[in-house]
Amino acid sequence: MRVLAKNIIEAARKSPDTEVEASGWVHRIRDMGGVNFVILRDRSGMVQLVLNEKPELNLESVIKVKGLPALNEKAPGGAEIRVSSMEIISPAAAELPFQVNGDLAKAGLETILDNRILSVRNPKIHAIFNVQATIVEAFSAYLRSQDFTEIKTSKLVWGGTEGGTELFEVEYFDRKVYLAQSPQFYKETMVASGMERVFEVAPAYRAEKHDTPRHINEYISLDVEMGFIESELDLIELERGLLTHIFALVNEKNSADLVLWNASVPAAEAVAAAPVIGYEDAVKLASDLSAKSGGAKIFDINPEAERLLCEWAKNEHASELVFVNEFPRRYRPFYTYPSDANRTMSFDALFRGLEITTGGRRQHSYEAFVEVLPRFNLKLENMQNYAALLQYGCPPHGGFAIGLERLTARILGLPNIKEASLFPRDRKRVSP
Amino acid sequence: MRVLAKNIIEAARKSPDTEVEASGWVHRIRDMGGVNFVILRDRSGMVQLVLNEKPELNLESVIKVKGLPALNEKAPGGAEIRVSSMEIISPAAAELPFQVNGDLAKAGLETILDNRILSVRNPKIHAIFNVQATIVEAFSAYLRSQDFTEIKTSKLVWGGTEGGTELFEVEYFDRKVYLAQSPQFYKETMVASGMERVFEVAPAYRAEKHDTPRHINEYISLDVEMGFIESELDLIELERGLLTHIFALVNEKNSADLVLWNASVPAAEAVAAAPVIGYEDAVKLASDLSAKSGGAKIFDINPEAERLLCEWAKNEHASELVFVNEFPRRYRPFYTYPSDANRTMSFDALFRGLEITTGGRRQHSYEAFVEVLPRFNLKLENMQNYAALLQYGCPPHGGFAIGLERLTARILGLPNIKEASLFPRDRKRVSP
Repeated sequence: MRVLAKNIIEAARKSPDTEVEASGWVHRIRDMGGVNFVILRDRSGMVQLVLNEKPELNLESVIKVKGLPALNEKAPGGAEIRVSSMEIISPAAAELPFQVNGDLAKAGLETILDNRILSVRNPKIHAIFNVQATIVEAFSAYLRSQDFTEIKTSKLVWGGTEGGTELFEVEYFDRKVYLAQSPQFYKETMVASGMERVFEVAPAYRAEKHDTPRHINEYISLDVEMGFIESELDLIELERGLLTHIFALVNEKNSADLVLWNASVPAAEAVAAAPVIGYEDAVKLASDLSAKSGGAKIFDINPEAERLLCEWAKNEHASELVFVNEFPRRYRPFYTYPSDANRTMSFDALFRGLEITTGGRRQHSYEAFVEVLPRFNLKLENMQNYAALLQYGCPPHGGFAIGLERLTARILGLPNIKEASLFPRDRKRVSP
Repeated sequence: MRVLAKNIIEAARKSPDTEVEASGWVHRIRDMGGVNFVILRDRSGMVQLVLNEKPELNLESVIKVKGLPALNEKAPGGAEIRVSSMEIISPAAAELPFQVNGDLAKAGLETILDNRILSVRNPKIHAIFNVQATIVEAFSAYLRSQDFTEIKTSKLVWGGTEGGTELFEVEYFDRKVYLAQSPQFYKETMVASGMERVFEVAPAYRAEKHDTPRHINEYISLDVEMGFIESELDLIELERGLLTHIFALVNEKNSADLVLWNASVPAAEAVAAAPVIGYEDAVKLASDLSAKSGGAKIFDINPEAERLLCEWAKNEHASELVFVNEFPRRYRPFYTYPSDANRTMSFDALFRGLEITTGGRRQHSYEAFVEVLPRFNLKLENMQNYAALLQYGCPPHGGFAIGLERLTARILGLPNIKEASLFPRDRKRVSP
């Protein structure tokens, strides 16, 4: 019966005279003058193996050992196995593309992404995806607790909801379809179908050519949509509750992962304290802050403005999160609900210098939808599915989406969101 | 403050003199000679509204009402609202494509799928997706409890893992990629990356041309992969535990949904009693059973064999589930682990007459992988990612995938799995 690395200490305490079996990867080998140490790594952590003979082993090979568990304060985790027998289950090649147990900064991002099978073995990189799994768990659990239903919608669509450009084309039998940029239309449809409150965790695609630390062409979108809201302020309150729950669960389940990145998550009070600032005020504030530090004038919420606004929120409101609402109509898609002639009931959430969420109330009136189409160069005859959504009784509603990789990256302080995607896709990368 | 339909009875009991507000869709209108009844539907259920005047309303319009809650044994749910004011929030068109509150059998599958926004408003169809959401929740929760990590992997791949055909091609900037048929390679990679136990809930794509009640071209694959297994029997035990948990949670959370379909889920004892039968024995048994009822001879596990084997399991083992293992090598992909010259450590799970799972142990030896490639007309130089998976220490491992739509359909007894997909894609359908 296999014992995980983290449980060897318990075995050493309870039954030091009973042999245990352990399996995993060879993380490190040390010859300490006659005594040979192997650090064995499994999904739970690491344990030291003590061998009498120098093992014939390559790093990263998978082995199975048997031996007596023993307490040892100097060993990682406080225990070791005095090995009586060892079996090599799967030998690793002698040459590794980079040093798994070494300093990742030396490997470089491209090597790390080219060799996911090896790079995720590094505990610090493994930690990224532990945190990411908790985010998905917490997102789903919180929304279920608020009476939301999880939906799964098609990623093959007849056209884009965010405008016709930036779509990947798919050869679908004898016609062309596109990869969905977002489940926008579908999640609205499901609200209006009577589900009222829905969420989806699924890939989304943007055929954007730019290669920046904040973009990938395939990402996981954490989508939320709810009916019977008054304005975007209802959505901001929902996102506060959601982020509070996500941060709390990450703190609870991933404390060791956070330590590896020297990271922490905001407390509930900090999320509650996050300011809401209107777009015009936000641009003016960012521009003033930029001028004070000798920077350029700022005309919209660009990456520099996101950084400055988060810095401001931290200094003035003790929060690393800020909501910007009342975006101008010209910056938002046709389905956004206007609050007056120029502004909309929409918002972005900025966290630690990066936009992690876009959302807002949507148009639910068929007449208003028909009226607004020419403004967006859209034709009713091409919008029949959207028309159907609004023709048969659609409640006031709205929603938002959180980019999973962006949120993961901002929690851990990763400079590039590609690091928070197991198999990122960018303009050049489609493998592995 | 809005009160949900299901809570009106409580309001009527506790504070019948305080007005409540309710919102939702107009499900039915009845004029009972002077007294007018409207059945209001929201996400929680239905409540009867009593109006003094005949309302000017189309069915399926979204309304908001205020009034006093009152107990009424004759009303659905045991309570009603005596309406003092009503507001039409979003009027529905007078003509509906089909009768939402009527018998669905009259509408027909194509109409139901063409009009998802309306068809999901029918409580019986809504029930399908309530059950589906619970399946996803239970799948994820059970695997987390068994120390599995949720992963999200790319759906844009450089080639197919299941053979080169039946792939949808995507125009990806200046090259072609394909929609993933399964996360097979990625989940194996993540096991070998040290995660050991992973699961994924994500779309999968098959460019198969056939249009049958058991196929769709885009489906949700519930994928599982785990390291350090001995054989497919470990996987079958895992799936027993998983299905037991899924059935139990559906039973707990969706009892009303099951009633609408006159459906029930197998008890834990029935899942435990599910037989495991070798492929050759299974084919022979199916053929014998077919002969007994005057049917044709059976040469492999075809749909008729699946039906007969499930019938046999029910009669002989009091289980609607049966596992068929030891599939011949010729029927399984290159990565399948052979148990002898002709057979593999692989299995299918059949449930209520339909294959819902394929799985098995995978090859983890690089040498065996290289040796087997010619047998499958594969060339090592085209398989470098797979080679890397096996070159750097890969534990014995295996996994399986459950088709979400198939499992949903079999739980509820839906004749066509398209009914269990919100927006199914088949050869002809790409909209809505």
